Amino acid sequence: MSSAGPQDPRFTDVGRLVVRCPDRPGIVAALSGLLAELDANIIDSQQHSSDPSGGTFTLRLEFFLADLSLRRPALEYRLTQLATDRQMVWRLTEAAHRPTLAVFVSREDHGLQELIYRVRAGDLRADIRAVVSNHPDVEPVARSAGIPFHHVPVTPETKEEAEARQLELVGDVDLVVLARYMQILSADFCSRFRERLINIHHSFLPAFVGANPYQAAYERGVKLIGATAHYVTPELDDGPIIEQEVARVDHRATVEGMRRVGRYVERQVLAQAVTWHVEDRVIVDGKKTIVFA
Amino acid sequence: MSSAGPQDPRFTDVGRLVVRCPDRPGIVAALSGLLAELDANIIDSQQHSSDPSGGTFTLRLEFFLADLSLRRPALEYRLTQLATDRQMVWRLTEAAHRPTLAVFVSREDHGLQELIYRVRAGDLRADIRAVVSNHPDVEPVARSAGIPFHHVPVTPETKEEAEARQLELVGDVDLVVLARYMQILSADFCSRFRERLINIHHSFLPAFVGANPYQAAYERGVKLIGATAHYVTPELDDGPIIEQEVARVDHRATVEGMRRVGRYVERQVLAQAVTWHVEDRVIVDGKKTIVFA
Amino acid sequence: MSSAGPQDPRFTDVGRLVVRCPDRPGIVAALSGLLAELDANIIDSQQHSSDPSGGTFTLRLEFFLADLSLRRPALEYRLTQLATDRQMVWRLTEAAHRPTLAVFVSREDHGLQELIYRVRAGDLRADIRAVVSNHPDVEPVARSAGIPFHHVPVTPETKEEAEARQLELVGDVDLVVLARYMQILSADFCSRFRERLINIHHSFLPAFVGANPYQAAYERGVKLIGATAHYVTPELDDGPIIEQEVARVDHRATVEGMRRVGRYVERQVLAQAVTWHVEDRVIVDGKKTIVFA
Amino acid sequence: MSSAGPQDPRFTDVGRLVVRCPDRPGIVAALSGLLAELDANIIDSQQHSSDPSGGTFTLRLEFFLADLSLRRPALEYRLTQLATDRQMVWRLTEAAHRPTLAVFVSREDHGLQELIYRVRAGDLRADIRAVVSNHPDVEPVARSAGIPFHHVPVTPETKEEAEARQLELVGDVDLVVLARYMQILSADFCSRFRERLINIHHSFLPAFVGANPYQAAYERGVKLIGATAHYVTPELDDGPIIEQEVARVDHRATVEGMRRVGRYVERQVLAQAVTWHVEDRVIVDGKKTIVFA
Repeated sequence: MSSAGPQDPRFTDVGRLVVRCPDRPGIVAALSGLLAELDANIIDSQQHSSDPSGGTFTLRLEFFLADLSLRRPALEYRLTQLATDRQMVWRLTEAAHRPTLAVFVSREDHGLQELIYRVRAGDLRADIRAVVSNHPDVEPVARSAGIPFHHVPVTPETKEEAEARQLELVGDVDLVVLARYMQILSADFCSRFRERLINIHHSFLPAFVGANPYQAAYERGVKLIGATAHYVTPELDDGPIIEQEVARVDHRATVEGMRRVGRYVERQVLAQAVTWHVEDRVIVDGKKTIVFA
Repeated sequence: MSSAGPQDPRFTDVGRLVVRCPDRPGIVAALSGLLAELDANIIDSQQHSSDPSGGTFTLRLEFFLADLSLRRPALEYRLTQLATDRQMVWRLTEAAHRPTLAVFVSREDHGLQELIYRVRAGDLRADIRAVVSNHPDVEPVARSAGIPFHHVPVTPETKEEAEARQLELVGDVDLVVLARYMQILSADFCSRFRERLINIHHSFLPAFVGANPYQAAYERGVKLIGATAHYVTPELDDGPIIEQEVARVDHRATVEGMRRVGRYVERQVLAQAVTWHVEDRVIVDGKKTIVFA
Repeated sequence: MSSAGPQDPRFTDVGRLVVRCPDRPGIVAALSGLLAELDANIIDSQQHSSDPSGGTFTLRLEFFLADLSLRRPALEYRLTQLATDRQMVWRLTEAAHRPTLAVFVSREDHGLQELIYRVRAGDLRADIRAVVSNHPDVEPVARSAGIPFHHVPVTPETKEEAEARQLELVGDVDLVVLARYMQILSADFCSRFRERLINIHHSFLPAFVGANPYQAAYERGVKLIGATAHYVTPELDDGPIIEQEVARVDHRATVEGMRRVGRYVERQVLAQAVTWHVEDRVIVDGKKTIVFA
Repeated sequence: MSSAGPQDPRFTDVGRLVVRCPDRPGIVAALSGLLAELDANIIDSQQHSSDPSGGTFTLRLEFFLADLSLRRPALEYRLTQLATDRQMVWRLTEAAHRPTLAVFVSREDHGLQELIYRVRAGDLRADIRAVVSNHPDVEPVARSAGIPFHHVPVTPETKEEAEARQLELVGDVDLVVLARYMQILSADFCSRFRERLINIHHSFLPAFVGANPYQAAYERGVKLIGATAHYVTPELDDGPIIEQEVARVDHRATVEGMRRVGRYVERQVLAQAVTWHVEDRVIVDGKKTIVFA
């Protein structure tokens, strides 16, 4: 599914440069100097220094550079030079590029529906290449959006081959989104998609890790329920958090009522995290994320 | 400290009836019939049935009854009769009555200051009778508000006698508020003030139970920090939750920054919980609360 | 479109009684007495007195009564009797009944999509009978949800006959929803659907009445943008407000960016208002609403 | 009143540079190059381009430069050179400097109390030099915080001389804060404190301009009430908005109830706006503000 228009001035010839390195004076000067030399104009810049003395420097630059695609190799060459003696890790992307997604779900479709809606509305610039599920339920939702649907049942016995099949189906997509996929993926899968695998957990982590968080929230009598989007790491519900939000509930809320309210929080949080990711706004920093929202 | 005005029509001759009993048809009819008979007018009513068949019925009624104080004994007599064969637990209060509070703090004064402000502003109808602290720091704040301050140092050795002294100082106040009191009270103290002892915990419980929640929140990289007001039970940070709220933080927040933002959430949550309590809006229901806000 | 399940215990034999009359003692007693007599059990009750002496009394009761449909005539007979000498206006509905909706849109489909999603998810118990639009754009959205779509173009010249056609198409639906319908309906249309016609306005009313509110909000430099759901009256954007919400924007937001963020607020506010309406939670009180949420 | 500590590493030798000029390539490079040359380290930078081609470029840099005070003249000299041919307007401040405030109030003290609290808590780095009021009511609040209080009554006849007296009392403070000061200041006063005069208006502007906004909000039946902090210009309630926030109310809220809830929104919004201003985070851009929060 795709909703690419022709040329959108917000994206054409707009580049994004994300940089990380040990902090020291002169980095902004070097990078902005390089861009100025090429006659690029910086549209937006955000920077974070974890600690001005001896910490990590992180920067996201959005710039306009005429004929970006043509001049990209030259820019990359210069960046490589610049990066070497600064231990700089960098990523250069073109805003016009539409990243590809695969979405994994089990039975609940609210996360998937929200992603489909946002792609169509033009609010999420990405193409959903495949929907993969261990149940057949959401097939109609995928089909009516024109997205290939793949039913890959998972049992304890078939888990390994199921995952092999999933990897095949997913191919080389830029991002895998677990939109309420209720199976645990192997450590191998997680590391193949390191920092490219986003899950929505239906609680305010680290509260209510694991299964049935709404049941647990109900029993604890909380007054807010939450949702957390995070990168997946082999350790359950422990990856770097990208976004969290909560909604108010009161004593009248049953478990089912919490689930109902929670769906609206989940879809908002998941869609926000995916959008930030595809716009190169999220940088993993150890167990945390830096989000240049 | 007190800011009682003369007669406020919002409170004069206004009674509050809070009721709990096994659910069955006819309870509202019986109670409202009784009030109608006495020519009382129901101003506000809120009801909750945990389960229409076989659950618990909870009701809060606010009513106007001319000469309430005079006629209260008659009303109580009739309520007692009504309650017997329905296993009804009830509480009748006069809105004009100002409950008394004792506030325990350690070094941080934001919760105390907020309570003082709200009492003065007339938003919290209560009188703070005493401030008790294991440190001398907040004495000026209490003094300048005209509230007696008591410094009761606590060490592992003197804990027992300190608590005896605290009980003496607290006397027969209606409610004890732990506004960032960093000592753990004994199970005995907790049960003496069962459902009359409110604590503010500086996290979104059940996340980050115990000491240093902001440090733990920082390390986990959460995107929202929270605060929880709850009744204190002997088990740490496990009592029935009255109110919770969160505030947004981002990657720029240090532990100290989270603490700073958190203070504004804490004072709001604590003051809200105390206000609901003194207005008879909170009903403990096992490990949870019903809040008729 | 419909997603009615078989029998849902939350709705079967559940009645809703909404009452309005001049306030005076004894109303709750009379109504709850009547229900108790019939052995109905009150599940939920909310009451509002605009002024305890001489104001308006409003009540919403949710009750369980076995064989509700069969016994409804008897209940209605008794209510009629009770109402006469109290100038009581009342409405009795069965929770199991699914109200019917017609949705009017112009080009933007986010409101319609949200309503479709909520009906399907079972969060909005209603059936959308028709989508009416002055443009053909949203036809695919309606069709793929199995809802009849009617294209009724409107020009200044054809406005009258267009409205005649719309009235015909709408028939006897319970509620007409204007989900970003950019034409002004006649005073006649508004009064035919008095208190049954809900509009979403894309601003925080009364700020930015009329056309292009995002443009106006942009020019004023507001830091929050809002949306307002209200009953439609002949006077533009002046009907009783049901629900409002806002979202944060900053200096980076263009008009188009505000529009994008605003869509998420609009769909939430509209769906909430429609849900409250079909659950008989909204009572119009002059120029305002009472919402027993 | 002052709560300056000794040396705080967050502020010592930390400079802030705020810059505005016509946008064109190379500005960031020139400024960061200059700082790099002096061996300053950029801690935080935020930038906004109103329009990449032909718009306005705005930048806020926070940097560390050893011996900032000593080296400031050199830095300023270089900035002046750089600014000339770029039509650059710039402001350089030292984070260690504590700006001075004068606070104007009438009878309500919640805004003033919040500012006092935040100064004491160290969350607002500023010194309140004077409280000026046309009523004597808040004198005790000012006095107990050790701030000089000046009662300057204002009548239509004495307005001019009152303002002369106010100007004298205010002297050369960095910022004048109208914390619910219910008199209109002259155009002359406004222009003397252009972009240094912040007012809190008790509504969500542009809704409910002028007097009695809570009364107007009550009559319109809004579901959210708001507050707006803005720079004061000669035109009433029309200056550039710095911050806005809302709180939920329902049909139970009286005008007095809205006022009560509103006070908590007002104090939060006002304190936030003042804090951003003294941290050089607000840049006026025509009728709007850019806030690098």
